Amino acid sequence: MSGTRPRIAVIGAGGSGLAAIKQCIEDGLEPVCFERESDLGGLWNFSDSSQLGKGSVYKNCVINTSKEMMAFSDFPPPESFPMFMPHRYVLKYFKMYAEKFGLFKNIWFDTSVLHVAPSDKYAVDGSWDVTYRRKHGEAETARFAGVLVCTGHHTFPHTPSFTGLDQFRGTSLHSHGYKDNKQFAGKRVLVVGIGNSAVDIAVDVSHVADEVFLSTRRGAWVISRMGFWGLPADAMANNRFLFSLPQSVLQWSVEKMANFRFNHEQYGLKPAHGALQAHPTINDELPYRIMTGAVRVKPNVYHFTERTVRFQDGTEEEIDAIIFATGYDYKIGIIDESITRIEKNKTSLYKYMYPPNLAHPTLAVIGLVQPIGAVMPISEMQCRWFTQVINGSRKLPDRQTMTRDIEGKREAMAATYISSQRHTLQCFWIQYMDELAAEVGVRPNMATLFREDPALALRCMFGPCLPAQYRIKGPGSWPGARDAIITSMDRAMAPMKTRILPKNFCSDVSADKPVISIPKYLRSYFLLAGRGENIHD
Amino acid sequence: MSGTRPRIAVIGAGGSGLAAIKQCIEDGLEPVCFERESDLGGLWNFSDSSQLGKGSVYKNCVINTSKEMMAFSDFPPPESFPMFMPHRYVLKYFKMYAEKFGLFKNIWFDTSVLHVAPSDKYAVDGSWDVTYRRKHGEAETARFAGVLVCTGHHTFPHTPSFTGLDQFRGTSLHSHGYKDNKQFAGKRVLVVGIGNSAVDIAVDVSHVADEVFLSTRRGAWVISRMGFWGLPADAMANNRFLFSLPQSVLQWSVEKMANFRFNHEQYGLKPAHGALQAHPTINDELPYRIMTGAVRVKPNVYHFTERTVRFQDGTEEEIDAIIFATGYDYKIGIIDESITRIEKNKTSLYKYMYPPNLAHPTLAVIGLVQPIGAVMPISEMQCRWFTQVINGSRKLPDRQTMTRDIEGKREAMAATYISSQRHTLQCFWIQYMDELAAEVGVRPNMATLFREDPALALRCMFGPCLPAQYRIKGPGSWPGARDAIITSMDRAMAPMKTRILPKNFCSDVSADKPVISIPKYLRSYFLLAGRGENIHD
Repeated sequence: MSGTRPRIAVIGAGGSGLAAIKQCIEDGLEPVCFERESDLGGLWNFSDSSQLGKGSVYKNCVINTSKEMMAFSDFPPPESFPMFMPHRYVLKYFKMYAEKFGLFKNIWFDTSVLHVAPSDKYAVDGSWDVTYRRKHGEAETARFAGVLVCTGHHTFPHTPSFTGLDQFRGTSLHSHGYKDNKQFAGKRVLVVGIGNSAVDIAVDVSHVADEVFLSTRRGAWVISRMGFWGLPADAMANNRFLFSLPQSVLQWSVEKMANFRFNHEQYGLKPAHGALQAHPTINDELPYRIMTGAVRVKPNVYHFTERTVRFQDGTEEEIDAIIFATGYDYKIGIIDESITRIEKNKTSLYKYMYPPNLAHPTLAVIGLVQPIGAVMPISEMQCRWFTQVINGSRKLPDRQTMTRDIEGKREAMAATYISSQRHTLQCFWIQYMDELAAEVGVRPNMATLFREDPALALRCMFGPCLPAQYRIKGPGSWPGARDAIITSMDRAMAPMKTRILPKNFCSDVSADKPVISIPKYLRSYFLLAGRGENIHD
Repeated sequence: MSGTRPRIAVIGAGGSGLAAIKQCIEDGLEPVCFERESDLGGLWNFSDSSQLGKGSVYKNCVINTSKEMMAFSDFPPPESFPMFMPHRYVLKYFKMYAEKFGLFKNIWFDTSVLHVAPSDKYAVDGSWDVTYRRKHGEAETARFAGVLVCTGHHTFPHTPSFTGLDQFRGTSLHSHGYKDNKQFAGKRVLVVGIGNSAVDIAVDVSHVADEVFLSTRRGAWVISRMGFWGLPADAMANNRFLFSLPQSVLQWSVEKMANFRFNHEQYGLKPAHGALQAHPTINDELPYRIMTGAVRVKPNVYHFTERTVRFQDGTEEEIDAIIFATGYDYKIGIIDESITRIEKNKTSLYKYMYPPNLAHPTLAVIGLVQPIGAVMPISEMQCRWFTQVINGSRKLPDRQTMTRDIEGKREAMAATYISSQRHTLQCFWIQYMDELAAEVGVRPNMATLFREDPALALRCMFGPCLPAQYRIKGPGSWPGARDAIITSMDRAMAPMKTRILPKNFCSDVSADKPVISIPKYLRSYFLLAGRGENIHD
């Protein structure tokens, strides 16, 4: 490799790592990506086994953000890919991205990073020593001008302690180790938790199990991927206008919609908290599984015996297996705790990225956030900021300011969310993206936009807040951005056009009936109709 | 058996047969039920293998009418049973019914009927000779005063012919033989058809298959079991008031609701016909499976090759297996065609029951209808009429009148539904039930009811049209009917109350916000709130 350009160590070749490599190359840096696996994708690089310290998805896992909302801002997924991608499509998409921007040559596969420490020159140039080991190789150390930690945070399973669990004789595993439902055929299964994994797994297991109990302490608001008219719900919800409304109004409408789909109290899921006071659970199948008795919602576990679980309402059930979908402990094992430490999943990073105590802003953690929305575009934006900072075109504020910002965010979070290990990295997608975008200089100025390109501005304001909105102007702007925004819904819907109807085909009896179509109004309001060619009812 | 009471042969111990036995006993007849299997349940008596001439359900089959709507009119299912029952619960319910009314003693298990013919005394007394064979036994013949044919009509698979099908080298089976998705793991599967079986199977297979293509010539309106607020949709829709509206209005609203859930054109399912011009397809999971690419909707099959299918839009796909969910041929093999014959699935039975050419009304076919709703209550009502007729308390009209009625129904059907093998036994549930109920003398008189019991009348008019409505007054009236109607929604919702919330638990931020709640209005309008204790949002 040429040594002329500053070398940046990118640790991990998942969604965040790929965005990091691409951004470094674009901004004249020399990225070296360390990937412990023999393939890229991280979490999305599915394997039949799971290992500690590595993210893991299960066989039937489908990403819960729609393809246009989870996309990298300058690389829309192929039209033919499903509106919500099963994991193998996400991996394909990542590979196309790596192909398109020539990222492979920068990835050292089968290479694990053991340790990252300030070099002896750190005080002077802010450089780092990265100790790594190639498969079957010796530990080696290399020096880098900067480090991007892209190791993800769904890697270290967290299992709370329960009385009697040690006596339980059946199978017991953490969702991190769940791959498919085969071993649970005909079994009585308890799933503990109410997050996305818990509900996904309960549903997946319920197709083959004899009984499935879903135990939740708090309950949850369960939102579906599919919105009204079969449109992607996240595209309808992640909307600048909606998020400009008072949070109470937003929360009120989210709860109304959720209950309109299925009454959360009736279905035993209603939490004490509001829909925006906790990370929402996204699942399209749970209500139907409950309705048919395939999944039974139960309160919190009181204790276990050899063969049974007793719940806090006093009911007891025989079970053969327990799956703990109880989340993760966030760790960055490779960096010394003196640099940054995580307590009770609480990080102390400036804008979730920078350890505030470093003399040089040459190390950042990427994608260590829990947005209500997709992480990939966020990681990308974080990297866009990092490269500007390391290239000197932007500066970080002084230590005090950063610390104040961190504490401020923490207080805000405490005020907004119920206290939980789950709610330490929360952020609202648009809010956080705009915050970073302001630093990068790519936050869309709606006023100007309305003057210069009203059609586009309308879509940016009332339509889905697509990552491409941050490619319209400023550093790294992309000529394709406008078209990507205008045509996003057409592309989202395209994969379903597998049975095209002849033009004269539709003889909907309702067609000739005059009617004030609120649906049509709403849709055009949310500007989800793409070019308006596709949506009729 | 005592010979004093007239003996009635009931052929088949499925849902229809059980209702028949019970009604015969109640009305002083002596039923003898012939059941070829060693257990009752018919279609719902699940077995891992399927055989020609016997109805069959697959492992994950869930009945598509809610438990209160499919129930026998005087025997509500247990509170604890799911709102929509998987087949094993339906069978349990049947057995409880048989237990409660002492039906077992009247069933001859492992006994197949070979032939039913008028006895040599038929001209005089209308009696029949039934030839049957006990397992491993000889053919025997017994004489009966009457015969009820309860053999069902999902027994003889229908597979249309396709060019090249004979050359296809992969697996090919009819939905009648489908039991579970195991053999399709990792395969590319084509499902042909768009009825309930086709869609159920496509969804079931899509959990394990590599690709699933769902080929439909016409498309369909796909309705879900779950209605708004998670209430049973059939209970909301099968409503006397709604069905008193002009059909165009009804159809218009059904289509609007269906498209509100997911846009049928967008999802490639939109048919050329209106929602009430064909038997609707009921499925809750298909839209989500399409959205994630797990099921791909395709047009009609053009032809097959050794390994591929070519569709009429010219696209071609490699496939490993074909499942034909293309319906059934209706046959009553055991009765001589001179008595009643079915051509192209068209029956010639007075009110779908009586062969019009018989000198004596001592033979009827039960449950040979395709209602938009549950068959069980209809079979029950048919039997209530039959016993009155055979006991002489009711008379059938003369042959001409019956024939005119049959032709009238046929013309009406031709006018309402698109011509298809599927649409030969169609009827609207309430309409047909009222028609029979009028004969039986149990059709609720709304005017009287509003005077005598307004609360009940309101529920009968605007609430779900429950079978128990036909037990309020008249022959066979049931004291429990009123309570069954009033509490039906509580019972439907009861099984989901597995995580009861403390009263002070709900701190929904929306609670304190004043708002005109259209949902609440609508719910109370449909009177689906049970005693009104259960539904809040």
